[in-house]
Amino acid sequence: MSNNNQPTFPPPPPCGIITLSTDFGISDSYAGALKGVLLSVNPGCRPIDLTHALAPQDVQAGSFHLTQACPFFPTGTVHLAVVDPGVGTERRPIIVVTEKYFFVGPDNGLFSGIMQGGSNYFCFEPINTQYFLSPVSSTFHGRDIFAPVAAYLTHGIAPAAMGRKIEDPVLLALPAPPTEENNCLTGSIVHIDHYGNLITNIPQDRVLRIAECGQIMIACNDTVIRKLYTAYAQADENELFGIIGSGGMLEISAKNNSARLATGALRSQRVSVSADPP
Amino acid sequence: MSNNNQPTFPPPPPCGIITLSTDFGISDSYAGALKGVLLSVNPGCRPIDLTHALAPQDVQAGSFHLTQACPFFPTGTVHLAVVDPGVGTERRPIIVVTEKYFFVGPDNGLFSGIMQGGSNYFCFEPINTQYFLSPVSSTFHGRDIFAPVAAYLTHGIAPAAMGRKIEDPVLLALPAPPTEENNCLTGSIVHIDHYGNLITNIPQDRVLRIAECGQIMIACNDTVIRKLYTAYAQADENELFGIIGSGGMLEISAKNNSARLATGALRSQRVSVSADPP
Amino acid sequence: MSNNNQPTFPPPPPCGIITLSTDFGISDSYAGALKGVLLSVNPGCRPIDLTHALAPQDVQAGSFHLTQACPFFPTGTVHLAVVDPGVGTERRPIIVVTEKYFFVGPDNGLFSGIMQGGSNYFCFEPINTQYFLSPVSSTFHGRDIFAPVAAYLTHGIAPAAMGRKIEDPVLLALPAPPTEENNCLTGSIVHIDHYGNLITNIPQDRVLRIAECGQIMIACNDTVIRKLYTAYAQADENELFGIIGSGGMLEISAKNNSARLATGALRSQRVSVSADPP
Repeated sequence: MSNNNQPTFPPPPPCGIITLSTDFGISDSYAGALKGVLLSVNPGCRPIDLTHALAPQDVQAGSFHLTQACPFFPTGTVHLAVVDPGVGTERRPIIVVTEKYFFVGPDNGLFSGIMQGGSNYFCFEPINTQYFLSPVSSTFHGRDIFAPVAAYLTHGIAPAAMGRKIEDPVLLALPAPPTEENNCLTGSIVHIDHYGNLITNIPQDRVLRIAECGQIMIACNDTVIRKLYTAYAQADENELFGIIGSGGMLEISAKNNSARLATGALRSQRVSVSADPP
Repeated sequence: MSNNNQPTFPPPPPCGIITLSTDFGISDSYAGALKGVLLSVNPGCRPIDLTHALAPQDVQAGSFHLTQACPFFPTGTVHLAVVDPGVGTERRPIIVVTEKYFFVGPDNGLFSGIMQGGSNYFCFEPINTQYFLSPVSSTFHGRDIFAPVAAYLTHGIAPAAMGRKIEDPVLLALPAPPTEENNCLTGSIVHIDHYGNLITNIPQDRVLRIAECGQIMIACNDTVIRKLYTAYAQADENELFGIIGSGGMLEISAKNNSARLATGALRSQRVSVSADPP
Repeated sequence: MSNNNQPTFPPPPPCGIITLSTDFGISDSYAGALKGVLLSVNPGCRPIDLTHALAPQDVQAGSFHLTQACPFFPTGTVHLAVVDPGVGTERRPIIVVTEKYFFVGPDNGLFSGIMQGGSNYFCFEPINTQYFLSPVSSTFHGRDIFAPVAAYLTHGIAPAAMGRKIEDPVLLALPAPPTEENNCLTGSIVHIDHYGNLITNIPQDRVLRIAECGQIMIACNDTVIRKLYTAYAQADENELFGIIGSGGMLEISAKNNSARLATGALRSQRVSVSADPP
């Protein structure tokens, strides 16, 4: 992160694409209102839904989601995200600028995964109310602050024109990186997906190094799993197994079943990986 | 509303944006078929999902939804909405033209909230079948009538070219406006959102006037609430409280909980607001 | 289907529209990642969500969905579909080219309904890795193979440039067409929709011919239904009835209720239609 008052790289040129990630659900008018504001500020922008079904108020889940979906978008994309339990308090709005993207939303840790992902970034707090709706409600800054700011970014308005540089964005404590002791790796479940797959923070290379030492043993919530496959179809019906997921991390899956239900595991629980020497 | 045969203002210039609000759900092909028809009639139009998860057949909920989401869109937007239990009967299709927008859907009260919201409007019944799919099914006018009509509007076809002016659109009885007696306001719950917030029809200024008289008391379904906050974060965990929502109306919320579950309240139930004089 | 090595018609000119149909659900990052890849390969393409709520791993349901939604799109649309239990195995990727459309996804029968629907088509297996993401994961070919191939199609890259022609695409056994014996038609339930309507494979003309012979009797899972209506509103509250649905097939519905719950019927169950002679 930059430590002086000047950005250390020029912001990316905006491409007109604005992604939306929220916990608004799919049955209310909130996501629609957001899109209306975006298109009113810039009728040429292109809103793209990522999800509106983040767990309500779950900033950690939102942070993980953004790290998984956003990197696939073209340079200049504006990523608008709203999970905002602190709306109406002193919680600041924030623009995070990375070498490829703009992120806009509440400064509550929602962009932690992005900021801690290793790329350079700098941050602004939008304070220039000419870029907000008027009046600003105390319960829906997504509509009244974040959406218009996101849309003005696609117009090429510089983040510095909308606010002041800040050096202390809120960062969540990320799950501890996996530890290794006596050839036993210990990490944790960072997300459970729609299929019931348990997604860990244990990277592929470390899993494969353990697997070379003998019969793999993956332990999670009192269940021990002894299979590491490369395709779901290799498993027997309902069988629990490990697999390297599309994010390059160890996942625990159950064939045509939910590993969440089969193991009873919850997010944040520990997962260990070791090997029975041959 | 206009009372003669001529519109009293020119229709807004179409901007190519078509919003979609339906009760089709998200797992069937119905919403997709709608978008296909829109893009077949005008490949340059831009379909924007508002929601496909309106409660099935709930015209009242659809009407409320449109009043909340549509006003944020740019002038010239076509709002296509389908909640249509009367499809295949004599129920007419309708185009409602306001000073900013076009609305297309069934003439069953779905646009009541828009028409009763105070803006000028005029209405047409599309009858010119050259603007419909052929044949028209008896069960899916969303696809066969409303979608092509909406898309032709974005092409600049005048509503009057597609049908005949009508003066008697169907209007739902809106919830009675709040009444006030002896410094006690009585309104009702008009919507319950995804978070479980109970949204009333009692406007901010009237609530604040009561609150100035003493300790506020909000009563709903045998629960009495004595707090009025300006941010969700001011509440204690699970605490019930009143708050002015993003639509400018009193809402009943529960911190990190569902006020719907906490109170057992249903849509249409009465909510009263009074004050214990200090 | 073509039986030689050359396509028998030119592929349609791409129009920039890419529809998405998946079983990814709406709460994860998978659908978002797909859209990111599409827009990275062709920033000018237009992703259009059909559904992300196909039943997990249900290739048959996906096949039916595509036959219902896709035909309404303009010529040149690319239909991207992902229901992919065999990802990471020898299961091939496939491009199906019809006279109007391109289809991209796994070669596991997902396009059976399209291929068996009577239009001409030819197929390619994309093998040219320059059109894939790199590296290709073993669990998410939707993102790494199908999405970039779909987006390159909108750039005008010929299917033949991306892979080799194949003559043996996987075809699911479709539900048997309805049979008729002694004026009794027997078909089956091919889909149950969001409202609980039971959609059969018995076409309108055959139902109407039976109905001309006397009082109609529709039998399904031990329930006998004696009404055939042309509009939902003709039924009494909760009444079960037959109706010709928007796809031109017999459906069993219940007024303001779920015919699925009212009958206990499941997909694939038999439905018979006969008449009590007058």
